[in-house]
Amino acid sequence: MPYPRDAINRLHAYAPGEQPESLDVVKLNTNENPYPPAPAVLDAVADVSAESLRRYPPPAASRFRQLAGQTHGLSNKHVLAVNGGDELLRLAITVFCQPGVGNPNGQGGLGVCAPTYSLYPVLAAIAQTPLIVAPSREDFSPPEDLAQTWNRAGCRLGMIVNPHAPSGYLESLERLASIAQAFKGVLLIDEAYVDFAKHDALALIKPPYELDNVILLRTLSKGYSLAGLRFGYALAAPNLIAAMDKARDSYNTDILSQAAAIAALQNCDHARESWRKVTEQRTRVTESLKAMGFTVCPSQTNFILAAPPNDAATPTADKLYQLLKRRGVFVRYFDQDRLRDKLRITIGTPEQNDALLTALRDLAHADINKQ
Amino acid sequence: MPYPRDAINRLHAYAPGEQPESLDVVKLNTNENPYPPAPAVLDAVADVSAESLRRYPPPAASRFRQLAGQTHGLSNKHVLAVNGGDELLRLAITVFCQPGVGNPNGQGGLGVCAPTYSLYPVLAAIAQTPLIVAPSREDFSPPEDLAQTWNRAGCRLGMIVNPHAPSGYLESLERLASIAQAFKGVLLIDEAYVDFAKHDALALIKPPYELDNVILLRTLSKGYSLAGLRFGYALAAPNLIAAMDKARDSYNTDILSQAAAIAALQNCDHARESWRKVTEQRTRVTESLKAMGFTVCPSQTNFILAAPPNDAATPTADKLYQLLKRRGVFVRYFDQDRLRDKLRITIGTPEQNDALLTALRDLAHADINKQ
Repeated sequence: MPYPRDAINRLHAYAPGEQPESLDVVKLNTNENPYPPAPAVLDAVADVSAESLRRYPPPAASRFRQLAGQTHGLSNKHVLAVNGGDELLRLAITVFCQPGVGNPNGQGGLGVCAPTYSLYPVLAAIAQTPLIVAPSREDFSPPEDLAQTWNRAGCRLGMIVNPHAPSGYLESLERLASIAQAFKGVLLIDEAYVDFAKHDALALIKPPYELDNVILLRTLSKGYSLAGLRFGYALAAPNLIAAMDKARDSYNTDILSQAAAIAALQNCDHARESWRKVTEQRTRVTESLKAMGFTVCPSQTNFILAAPPNDAATPTADKLYQLLKRRGVFVRYFDQDRLRDKLRITIGTPEQNDALLTALRDLAHADINKQ
Repeated sequence: MPYPRDAINRLHAYAPGEQPESLDVVKLNTNENPYPPAPAVLDAVADVSAESLRRYPPPAASRFRQLAGQTHGLSNKHVLAVNGGDELLRLAITVFCQPGVGNPNGQGGLGVCAPTYSLYPVLAAIAQTPLIVAPSREDFSPPEDLAQTWNRAGCRLGMIVNPHAPSGYLESLERLASIAQAFKGVLLIDEAYVDFAKHDALALIKPPYELDNVILLRTLSKGYSLAGLRFGYALAAPNLIAAMDKARDSYNTDILSQAAAIAALQNCDHARESWRKVTEQRTRVTESLKAMGFTVCPSQTNFILAAPPNDAATPTADKLYQLLKRRGVFVRYFDQDRLRDKLRITIGTPEQNDALLTALRDLAHADINKQ
């Protein structure tokens, strides 16, 4: 008898991007920030004492919450610290969605737009909560009637990644507000990439909007160059934070990552400089690819979604992905609708982007059959 | 309309023991190891590079799994790394128990013995899975017909903490094996305190037992003096590990804790010395309390459960807890059946135990009304 329940046996687990051990590759496949974190972060980690490691950490990361609240002009009650943004996604489903097979007519589920972060459907499957998928528009923006679609299906939670992954599209604050106001459940706006965008959705949490059904997801993985740390946080009305706080693992963030996260926020200027450089390079890579005949979605993130020209001289996207990998340049290819003809390319340092562009120029002009 | 689902609104969250910020208190309330972790652990943390923090960590903690497998005479496929033992408890419920309100006759639930680790019922409530509670025997050992009770109730997962919390009782390997063999679901043996015991249950995973339905929970929090780190692991048959691996958060352990955990296991002799000292002190504290008229459960952990003498000169357990706290000595008091007349006291350093015993001698002989 297999012990796991059926939903787990059936589950296709989330497949993270490749993480090659070698440091020699040009790694533009998992949207890490190409610049190092602030030196103060490493100092803070090295300063954690044996005594602090020996004891349980502050269970609710109180110092971090205080600092994040101040940073965003909110209170600590508006902040929840999590072990990476992924924990917040799971936790929100746990708290707001109806789990299991017992919800008649598929009520109480999770609403998403497609395509989107490929983890969302996996988390819904694990929780055995209904998943309602609304196709995004041509430019990857949320569809016109999104809130109504989710409402009709009885969704209790909706997730929008904004700026959008994997396209880079940024939705306006006004449009997000109107979706949240029309939606009867909780709207989680996954702002994993917001540090590279020209605006965020913080205003939805504050007066005059002060919406009681909006959660913003923030992470230190991208903007703060700390993907290795697993630290993120939620910003939301205190009632929503309190509910998620009840259901999280009792000591979900450890003392080392709390210390590192505090140092990262305190040294925000260091991170800000990386955002400036990345957005500058984003313009350069976008223009260079367009000059090579690629179609590139306008991006407000640290990656771009680009379709190679559909001509005889250029390999298809999946072939290009393989050829680039063979040259030590890792990008991401998604074998799914609307993405099969495209590559998602993380913006790197100028040198990494040079390597990418040189490789693409070679490959686009070479005889494919000889590759 | 409240947004969280009803089960979360109704939930009484887990209450961790007090974590006073001051380092001046004698903290014997949350079962931390009183000795510091190996210096190599701090070195390993300080050696983590900016480049490693910038990148995503190895998603499955591959180096740690390899090492833990070797350490226990198993393969890496027998090991799952988790963000503290609590994550494993939640994950096992997610994978093996039926969530939600849709399981007729309360099938698919979690079986426990009572009293037990107070987090188990909270996790069952969050998952909305049925909870079947079997009262333990007088000595806090599992009841005679435990597997049968759980089987009749349709439990898919059972949790036993062994050595037992909060009593310190150690169940024999033979008895655990016979429970696992009779139980139709998965038996999780929470060995959080096993480093202080005279034997563990590792043999259940290996030949000749090689049971396919047993999970051992291990943590670095107690034995390795790393409660601040949040690192634990599961040992189990590869099929069980693979199922839990599918459902865990995609990057559940970070690069700093992976590095620290590897160093901790590599420097096991340092930890072992702390186990020796703690067990020595456990004998001493037990004997001293008995001499003062306390009833003390025989303990194979780093804490003891002790009932003050039921006489006019001695305050009751809850009163003693308060009086000790006022003197800066923190112990744990549980306001629940079979525990109301007892204190759970973590074994500290000789100096901390001196402070405890001195305070108790004062309080037991003093006029209670003057305290």
